[in-house]
Amino acid sequence: MDVFEAILRRRDVRNEFSGEVLDDERLTRLLRAAHSAPSVGNTQPWDFVVVQDRDTLARFAGHVGRCRDDFAASLPEDRKDTFNPIVIEGIESSGTGVVVTYDPTRGGKNILGRHTVDETGHLSVALAIQNLWLAATSEGVGVGWVSFYHEDFLKALVGVPEHVHVVAWLCVGPVTEFQTVPDLERFGWRDRRPLEDAVHRERFMN
Amino acid sequence: MDVFEAILRRRDVRNEFSGEVLDDERLTRLLRAAHSAPSVGNTQPWDFVVVQDRDTLARFAGHVGRCRDDFAASLPEDRKDTFNPIVIEGIESSGTGVVVTYDPTRGGKNILGRHTVDETGHLSVALAIQNLWLAATSEGVGVGWVSFYHEDFLKALVGVPEHVHVVAWLCVGPVTEFQTVPDLERFGWRDRRPLEDAVHRERFMN
Repeated sequence: MDVFEAILRRRDVRNEFSGEVLDDERLTRLLRAAHSAPSVGNTQPWDFVVVQDRDTLARFAGHVGRCRDDFAASLPEDRKDTFNPIVIEGIESSGTGVVVTYDPTRGGKNILGRHTVDETGHLSVALAIQNLWLAATSEGVGVGWVSFYHEDFLKALVGVPEHVHVVAWLCVGPVTEFQTVPDLERFGWRDRRPLEDAVHRERFMN
Repeated sequence: MDVFEAILRRRDVRNEFSGEVLDDERLTRLLRAAHSAPSVGNTQPWDFVVVQDRDTLARFAGHVGRCRDDFAASLPEDRKDTFNPIVIEGIESSGTGVVVTYDPTRGGKNILGRHTVDETGHLSVALAIQNLWLAATSEGVGVGWVSFYHEDFLKALVGVPEHVHVVAWLCVGPVTEFQTVPDLERFGWRDRRPLEDAVHRERFMN
């Protein structure tokens, strides 16, 4: 699939997982795409924990459900009504979780490019995620990024070492279709901003 | 260009800018690709400041040169010798800088998905950058991410508001070729890690 087509077709998938578990061959292709991302000082500070054990998926889904309830409780009434029908995860229905982590110690003390901007390590991991996401789209595989969790819970669940950070839980699985409009637009949570508002010339403020 | 091909051909470009300044039509296509990225709560918290003024480019290049010297001075002797021949920017030769920023206030107080993991806002901006990077690759346009700067200097240089963070300076321009091996591997700074080392099953540590 063409790059621009994949960029436009890519969705954050929650509801459309087919129930089929992704085969290892395609999964490895997606992980290889992620692993081909750029990273600050070529540190490649990411790791990927593939979770397919049904019990682990169910335990994480339970935790995420509780975090969802906390968020709902924090909302004003009108936003609560908008939020209620929105599905925020497909942990069990996707059949595969990919926990993506960041190891700030990889590459030692002198990281080329992290000397002045430390967060570039963390951001490198996001670049790998977007590679995986676009590669998945081109294979008809859906990805849903779940961020309703407490890091300590997830680290304990999949045995992440103390010094390593969790960046994301990705639900990854074959889909029946990709929605044409993102869920948060369809459900009236938040609309797209015009490109013109995001682009500035020479200076941010004139 | 096919997604997987773009992922593999993409390089962090420093030396291969042709000197031609990117035309507005292609630049807009790349910015639209970036703006099509997913973002936490659909906040689209990014902005893009396009810098083509030669004087601004020269001033930023001067600042980056000083940061480079500071980093070189911090290195042990053997790493200094490896670092010296590595070009870390193409600010003036690319002809176009795209300053990418993150506004944590966009979307108000109740951000769907940032309730538990605040950094997802910042990471969303990196997803937009990777979209731009892959789209550029497919158009024969090079991108080099510069992170040798002090944020305050860059914010003042292009008038970024107080509450907005700078995430990256991207050098963007047509290239004569893409290197087949990343610069930091070619120059012996750091090699690629085998994919097998980065992938774990069910648990990070067994």
